[in-house]
Amino acid sequence: CCGGVWMQTVTLIPGDGIGPEISTAVMRIFEAAKAPIQWEERNVTAIKGPGGKWMIPPDAKESMDRNKIGLKGPLKTPIAAGHPSMNLLLRKTFDLYANVRPCVSIEGYQTPYTDVNLVTIRENTEGEYSGIEHLIVDGVVQSIKLITEQASQRIAEYAFEYAKNNQRASVTAVHKANIMRMSDGLFLRKCREAAEKHKDVKFTEMYLDTVCLNMVQDPTQFDVLVMPNLYGDILSDLCAGLIGGLGVTPSGNIGANGVAIFESVHGTAPDIAGKDMANPTALLLSAVMMLRHMGLRDHAKKVETACFDTIRDKKVLTKDLGGNSKCSEFTEAICQRVRDMD
Amino acid sequence: CCGGVWMQTVTLIPGDGIGPEISTAVMRIFEAAKAPIQWEERNVTAIKGPGGKWMIPPDAKESMDRNKIGLKGPLKTPIAAGHPSMNLLLRKTFDLYANVRPCVSIEGYQTPYTDVNLVTIRENTEGEYSGIEHLIVDGVVQSIKLITEQASQRIAEYAFEYAKNNQRASVTAVHKANIMRMSDGLFLRKCREAAEKHKDVKFTEMYLDTVCLNMVQDPTQFDVLVMPNLYGDILSDLCAGLIGGLGVTPSGNIGANGVAIFESVHGTAPDIAGKDMANPTALLLSAVMMLRHMGLRDHAKKVETACFDTIRDKKVLTKDLGGNSKCSEFTEAICQRVRDMD
Ligand SMILES: CC(C)[C@H](C(=O)O)[C@@H](O)C(=O)O
Ligand SMILES: CC(C)[C@H](C(=O)O)[C@@H](O)C(=O)O
Repeated sequence: CCGGVWMQTVTLIPGDGIGPEISTAVMRIFEAAKAPIQWEERNVTAIKGPGGKWMIPPDAKESMDRNKIGLKGPLKTPIAAGHPSMNLLLRKTFDLYANVRPCVSIEGYQTPYTDVNLVTIRENTEGEYSGIEHLIVDGVVQSIKLITEQASQRIAEYAFEYAKNNQRASVTAVHKANIMRMSDGLFLRKCREAAEKHKDVKFTEMYLDTVCLNMVQDPTQFDVLVMPNLYGDILSDLCAGLIGGLGVTPSGNIGANGVAIFESVHGTAPDIAGKDMANPTALLLSAVMMLRHMGLRDHAKKVETACFDTIRDKKVLTKDLGGNSKCSEFTEAICQRVRDMD
Repeated sequence: CCGGVWMQTVTLIPGDGIGPEISTAVMRIFEAAKAPIQWEERNVTAIKGPGGKWMIPPDAKESMDRNKIGLKGPLKTPIAAGHPSMNLLLRKTFDLYANVRPCVSIEGYQTPYTDVNLVTIRENTEGEYSGIEHLIVDGVVQSIKLITEQASQRIAEYAFEYAKNNQRASVTAVHKANIMRMSDGLFLRKCREAAEKHKDVKFTEMYLDTVCLNMVQDPTQFDVLVMPNLYGDILSDLCAGLIGGLGVTPSGNIGANGVAIFESVHGTAPDIAGKDMANPTALLLSAVMMLRHMGLRDHAKKVETACFDTIRDKKVLTKDLGGNSKCSEFTEAICQRVRDMD
């Protein structure tokens, strides 16, 4: 098929609200870039399975299991009682243990910071997200933060491997082991052990509060940061804020054996859905991460450059980026640049 | 005594490193401002009490119990094995349940943000700081986050009272009740109940990650924020970073029945200790909070104005503030302004 180019199939989860529009934008740009990708569209909205357990629809699960790689737009927060967060369900279903968010300043897009270039790596499966809570007596509640050696080791190892594979010089472990001596202590110990194995990458440790303070004062001092689940939830959003918000920040959820789902982490923006006004940048840059993950580095570079050049150029921008172009016009501007590179 | 002025006694804990110098600076400025305060100096470094339990020395405890109000410089991190964090021990000993940090942009001191004017109110006694941790099986650790109705109600009530007493329009509860449904859920419920009682103060709720993202994008949207212990640890440092760091950020720890300890939260800076180079601003502004807490609003205003005017004027500044004056010179400049106001 396709002129003899070997195509890889990716599960596409367009999502809700502006999801379909920005997914179309990505597909058009990938086509212009001749990325050897075939899309298989699936809806992941959870259904009630046997025994009343919420689960991903079987055809979506089967598609991901087969393709291993997914690209996902925003999903609306479920309203049915007891319906789980789709994000959490996807992480769990496919054991996506690492959430990776590169935060890189975008030239031409004004924020209080320049030259931010860091990556947050969040443990995605345990910690404060264990879901275990108890009522001890009336008015006294316990939530359990669960830290295991295995998950800590896996994420620490991943952080160092990531640093090496992406030409990054240092890894900082973010923790509160001064307070949670056993749990964060275990996490930190595993980071130290991984650091011992990867001596070519610089290793530092820093308290979460200190990281936050330093981050807003000078984010350029940070490179790769690795941390337990909740700290990653916080820091990844904080860092997204530094470079312009969730509308321009890509995200990847990585599992074992090459399984991964890349996603924009902004909302579904129901107010502008269907109006050709959405900004596809976050999903596009997530798709660029996906290309790199698949080893398609040249295609990644091409699409990324076209996107950044279009933003720097300032002529064709969506409203949230400060322009007054439609989503389709912004998309076409990027396609044009991609074609011009040939 | 003292020309018939009724003096209130305050326990002064000068602390370590630069602590004594910046305490002297505050005492001099208070003298110039004729603040009706008498100082009673005490050392709080923990000792081993009966049964091997670490405790505050009895004379320091007795002084605080009698005076109710303390001012505290930085304390060095203890090195003895098992020695507790002094900050945690003080909070516990005097049941200082609310940590209050006003973060206000200082005119003339350049940061990426202007017009920041918010207050973080942190629950200071429980949550992730319960100190309860277990090894379940080898390689599996649990830390317990403890949330009680009583402590949540107390801090929520405090936040609304604070807002009213300080002419602030809104309170935002910061939480992750989407993840920790029971514990943060309980905290949030208590905030909602307090909001019901104080309808003259606007109430909003926001996820911690969303707060962090919005905070670095536009901190001016926030007013009073109230939250569980760990979130407060993080957010208070983040917000300090927005206005110039711990060297200019005051802090107060409030307990029941008027008991309170005000403190600078920066370190002891051993490298510059004894060299007359330290910046006393954080401790001075904490002392200003103390004056307000004691109802001495005129003296508070005077000292605060003199401090801010000196910084805005830029002529006499310590090194960390961008100048090249000594601590004593900066102090004298503030004293001079205070005297000029008479
Ligand atoms: C939607 C929510 C469950 C989620 C989280 O808290 O992890 C979100 O904030 C995220 O970062 O993906
Ligand atoms: C020193 C440490 C125990 C403390 C904390 O984590 O609460 C500090 O960060 C603070 O905010 O006072």
